[in-house]
Parts: sequence; C-alpha cells; structure tokens
Amino acid sequence: MVKVSRSFPSNKIEVLYAETYAYPPWVKALLHTPLKGMSVEDVSGLDFLLGELYAEYALRAIQSAGLEPEDVDAIGSHGQTLLHLPGGRKLGERTVRSTFQVGSGAVIAHKAGILTVSDFRSADIAAGGEGAPLVPVFDYVLLRSSKKSRVALNIGGIANLTAIPRKARLAEVIAFDTGPGNCMIDTAVRLRAGEESASGEDGGTASEPGGALAHLGKGAVFDRDGAQSFDRDGALARVGEIDDDCVEEVLAHPYFARKPPKTTGWEEFGVEYTHGLIEGMAARERSTRDMARTFTEITGATIANAIEDFVRPEMDVDEVIVTGGGSRNSMLMGLLKKRLPEIPVDIGEAQGIDSDAKEASAFAYLAYLRLEGIAANIVSQAAGSDPALLGSISEPA
Amino acid sequence: MVKVSRSFPSNKIEVLYAETYAYPPWVKALLHTPLKGMSVEDVSGLDFLLGELYAEYALRAIQSAGLEPEDVDAIGSHGQTLLHLPGGRKLGERTVRSTFQVGSGAVIAHKAGILTVSDFRSADIAAGGEGAPLVPVFDYVLLRSSKKSRVALNIGGIANLTAIPRKARLAEVIAFDTGPGNCMIDTAVRLRAGEESASGEDGGTASEPGGALAHLGKGAVFDRDGAQSFDRDGALARVGEIDDDCVEEVLAHPYFARKPPKTTGWEEFGVEYTHGLIEGMAARERSTRDMARTFTEITGATIANAIEDFVRPEMDVDEVIVTGGGSRNSMLMGLLKKRLPEIPVDIGEAQGIDSDAKEASAFAYLAYLRLEGIAANIVSQAAGSDPALLGSISEPA
Repeated sequence: MVKVSRSFPSNKIEVLYAETYAYPPWVKALLHTPLKGMSVEDVSGLDFLLGELYAEYALRAIQSAGLEPEDVDAIGSHGQTLLHLPGGRKLGERTVRSTFQVGSGAVIAHKAGILTVSDFRSADIAAGGEGAPLVPVFDYVLLRSSKKSRVALNIGGIANLTAIPRKARLAEVIAFDTGPGNCMIDTAVRLRAGEESASGEDGGTASEPGGALAHLGKGAVFDRDGAQSFDRDGALARVGEIDDDCVEEVLAHPYFARKPPKTTGWEEFGVEYTHGLIEGMAARERSTRDMARTFTEITGATIANAIEDFVRPEMDVDEVIVTGGGSRNSMLMGLLKKRLPEIPVDIGEAQGIDSDAKEASAFAYLAYLRLEGIAANIVSQAAGSDPALLGSISEPA
Repeated sequence: MVKVSRSFPSNKIEVLYAETYAYPPWVKALLHTPLKGMSVEDVSGLDFLLGELYAEYALRAIQSAGLEPEDVDAIGSHGQTLLHLPGGRKLGERTVRSTFQVGSGAVIAHKAGILTVSDFRSADIAAGGEGAPLVPVFDYVLLRSSKKSRVALNIGGIANLTAIPRKARLAEVIAFDTGPGNCMIDTAVRLRAGEESASGEDGGTASEPGGALAHLGKGAVFDRDGAQSFDRDGALARVGEIDDDCVEEVLAHPYFARKPPKTTGWEEFGVEYTHGLIEGMAARERSTRDMARTFTEITGATIANAIEDFVRPEMDVDEVIVTGGGSRNSMLMGLLKKRLPEIPVDIGEAQGIDSDAKEASAFAYLAYLRLEGIAANIVSQAAGSDPALLGSISEPA
C-alpha cells in the first residue's frame, strides 16, 4: 500500500504496508508448466484464476493493514508474465511485437470491489518501446536529488538500473537491464538440487492502500517457500572457485556490448542458457559451489561493467542503491563494492526503501500515473518511442 | 459509427456509418488454426496483430465516413473470441469460469489515437454472469415502445432474442440464446464443399463515429469473400427434403428444454456436433441440399419453439424483428412466419435497423455505457448476478 501526495514529478510516495504472498503450490505447479504444454484453455483459465487470487491477496493485505477496501483508490496489478516478445515474432505476413500478462484486471476490479489498472506493458510495446523497464519513473521520483547523482540498481532474476544525475530532468534518466541478476545463480542451485524449474519473474507482492493504491504481484516467487532454491546470502558461492572459461564465455555474450537503452529477460539468460553453461562446467568437474561462485562473479562483473561502460561516461555516480533479492546476498554485494571501489554501494534499506515492497510500490505508483494521465514510459521515450499511458482501467459497478 | 444523444435509458442512437472489413486471407488462416494447434506465442501475437488491424479498420472507416479521428470519442471493440467457458473448467484445485478475446485494447487505442473500450465479457463472467448475451440492453434502448411488445431476434451463427414487453422496465426484458442460427447450415455447406472450417463468430464490422463511438468487429466473417460457404438465401434448402430422424435427434437436445436465461455457442452446436449429424444423414444417403433443408428446418423450429415456450407465456408478442445473416435467408424467414402465424415477423431493415451494422452499433453503445458508468449486463442481473461495468479502458497519451 502506498500513499501518493503532491503532484508529479514532486510526488511524495509513502509505503503504508507491504506483504508478499506466495502462490499456493498447485498454482505454482500450473505456472511451472512449460509454455509448450499450455493450452489456450489453460491461458484463459489462468487469466481468471490469477485475477481471483490477486483480488483475494489485495483484500487480505488491506485487512492486515487495518484498512477497508473503500480506503483504497486503485489497485495496480502487473500480472504474471507468460511471454514478452518485444523483438517481434513472425505471424503470418507480419512481424508482431507483443507482451502477454495474465491476471485479468476486470476480475480483480470486480472481486476486490476496487478500480484496477492492469496490463502496463502493452501500451509501451504499441508505442514502439520494449515494454520494459517501467520502474525508472518511480526510481526517478523516489531518488532524484539536488545534491547527489544516484544509480538505483535492482537485482531480481534480471538486474536493471536507473541512473539519475543530480537535478536531473526526466529526459536525462538512463535506464536499462544490465543482464543476469539472480537467474543464473538460482538456476544452478535449483538444477543441482534436482529441482527442474521453468521461469518466473520477481515479485508476488501484494501491498498498500490508505487513501492510496494497492499493487499486485509482478510474478510468482518460486523461491520463498522453504526449499533450497537459491544461494542464501551467497553461502555456496563463498566456498566455491571461479571457472574462468565460463566467465569468459558469458562476458563475450553480445548483449553486454550493446549500448543502452536495452532490455533482456529469462528468454536470454534464464534456464536454457544457464543449462548449457552448467553442462560445460560439469564436464570440467566443477562442483555446485563452484558454479554458484562463477555465476555470482559473472553477475557482479556484468553489473559493474555496465555502470563503468554506460553510466560513468555520462554522469558522476555518487552512490549506488541496491534493491531486489540480490541486495540480500552479501557475497554479491561484496563483489560489487570491490569492483566499484570509488563509489559507495548500499542497500535500499539504508535509504528507507524496503526491497520487498519496491516492485509493488512501483506498480501502485504507475497506476496513479495512469489515472493522472501521465505517460510513464520514459525509457522508451528517451529511445524515440511515443509517449504512452500505461495500463487499462477496469472498475467495479 | 454511432452518435448517442440524450440520457440512458432514453438514448437516441443514430448510425452514422457502417462498414464490414474482411480479415486478409492469411489472418483468416491463422484464426482457422484449431485451438489445439495454437501456442501461447500465437495467442500473444494475435492479441497484438488483431489490435493493429482493428485500429487500421477504424481509421479507414473514419476516413470513409468523411470524419477525423478527433471526431470520435471512443472505440468499442469486442475482439475476436478464442474461448468462452462460462460453465467453468477445472484448473488445479479450482473450477474457473473464463472468457478470452484477443485484439488488445491498448494497441487499438495507441494505433488509432482514440480511447478504446475492450474486453466486454470478462466483467460479466466475474460478476457471476454468462458473459453473454450483452446486446439486450442495446435492443431495449433501441426497440422498447409504449405501444408494442417486441421480440428482437438476431440470427448469427447462434440465434438469440431479446423480448421487450410494452412499456418494459429494464428488469422486465427477457433475453437468451435460442440455439443454432446459421452455424449448422453453414457447417453443412462448407464441409460438403470440401472446405473444412474451424469456427468464427459473426461480425468483423468496423464502424461509426461523429462526436460519437466506433465499434470494432466481434469476429471474423469467414463467409463473405466469394467462396460458397453458406446457403445463400436458402437456395439449397429450398430444393432439399427434410430428414426427420435428424430433426428429432436435435430437438431432443436438452438445451431446448432448459429455461432461460441460457446461452450456448459453437462449442455446443458448431462444427463438431453438426459433423455427427451430417455423418448420420450421409449414411442415410441424404444429399447436401437435404442437409441444408433439414438444418434450416431445425433452426426455424427451435427459434419458433423458444418464442412459444419461453416468451409468449410471459408477454404478448406484437412483432418479431429479425437481424443477422439469417434475416437474409428468405427460406428461413418463410419457415418462421409459417410457425408463428399470429405474429408479424419482419426484418430489421423494416424498422430502420441495418443488420450488418447492428452488432457493431451495439458494442459502440456498450462502450458509451462503460464510460457513463452504467452496468450493462442486464440479462445476468435478471438471473441474480451482480451489476458489472463492461469493458476496460485504454487511452492514447
């Protein structure tokens, strides 16, 4: 739950309440179905099922916060991404760019009894953008300063950053995905634990009203239900050794040389890609801890390189503020500090930003921007796309 | 294009312009893909592709009407139905009711530069309704009279009616699907022409602004591009003979005994069901014309029976006004007149209603109701469902 006051871009954004709900195991199982095994009936059903669940989570969060549904002006729901194809795919005679999230806004609005903004990425794709990243406008409003030039770094499955020069105007913000966040490390740990896993973005957080806005999860949290499915605090990596061949192979991936703005995803650095690397290392008799160490090294290196190569030539960087699951991996945080010796690297909590609530708060804020009629796709606009109002509005009667 | 004036439910609805665009052949081919052969990638792509096409059709229609996009307040787009499962389907541990239309409203809004209302059926399903029929509120506003009790009958693939007693209040309207419209006749003609066909609803009509609202097609018109894919004006049926066994079998279908409100679809009376009947008749050495005659007879009988069994016990019927493709089949119209000897049965054009524009006009009007905040799901409400605002709103920046 966030409360938004004052006017754009000088909004004050106050997090009133935040909570993360895990999908029930049977829903996780449905979402783990490889896309190839998903029928149109499944897709249609998931759209409504997740809409129902998100409404239930929203109402539960509102109750836990000691509020009433009437206190909430709007829900912002990202939905569960099934596909994100901004690069386009041939369909008949056209190449069609698309993105596809399920979790029907119409269902959420009716079941929760609260106006709902959903489907944030489609309008940006239609406007010529990549449909991502969308959070930079939130980073900008939250972190811009008259004294410091800041980089907001979010390490989820994929890592992305928003660089905000001191006294920046909106158009001066630099934002892009740096590459893998936790996705490679997680994949290695899961696979080696014999646990085959499909994909999944960050999130699953339902949060925040109060004359205010509630946000519904960006995706499933496949990691937070007990099973060892990630390298907690880098414990494995810490006792492993680096596989230089693997590091070299990944750093040669053309994504890292591409100039921003640019976005990537699990499609590029997720299970399939990581599989191949793991097989290579297994052939070289590397242990799981070596793999965890190697992927942690790669993640730290690609993030630090991105800041060195694409941010520092454009602006001073007075501090890097890290959020997302990766910010709780002290091994990874240590690597970043070592690779960026001149820049203070700190976790979001040090700035009063609750990592668990950030994505949720961002989409609640994006709902506010949609209702205010403010085009929030600033990264795409910087790259030459049209302004777009992100999200469609569904309302209860 | 329709212009809506005065206030609900006394709106004056004026059709300014209407046109039907056929999908290009390669798009038809994509939509003919059986659902089993459709991947999630295809679904995501179709959502964006059809959104682009609908925007193009809308702009073309606006230009043909001699208007500018700025003259249009809103587009109402039904989208292309891929699935309609109001009866529910087991998904994991829940039975999930859903409906699924593609043709992204976000894409239409951006590409046409016009506010777009889309996804009309989801909210009704969420509210506990069947997601259909949605047109009765339009029939009501268009046809209610202080002097006559009227039945608005629309014969598309499926036939449905709205019965509006003289001086009716909204809650007194009776509306339901009577059963097969043209779907059986069309299927027989297509199959026997060696042309295997998947499904497809009525429509494909893009139409109408003028300080007003434009509507985008309910679905593909698979029939209107030259190939013999329907029984034009009942020419085949007229020279065929009735297969009594088949008539008896269909009339015994439990749908016809069920009390309204009730809805059906191609799932129940479409290709698969008709296939079985055709095979039975083929085994009895029936010709295509016999089949066309038999299915025309069945269509006429089930519509007339529905009026006798479920409408006349509740109200006088002073006239039946027929729209949809079936209204242009004089063989079928003759059967209806014969089976309803006491009631004038007339085509919509006699009342100034353009059959081709009706569905389009109805969804443009539903967009108006959404924007006015009026719950338009009157049939579901009559059956005990919650009121619902139908449609989600996407806007260009």
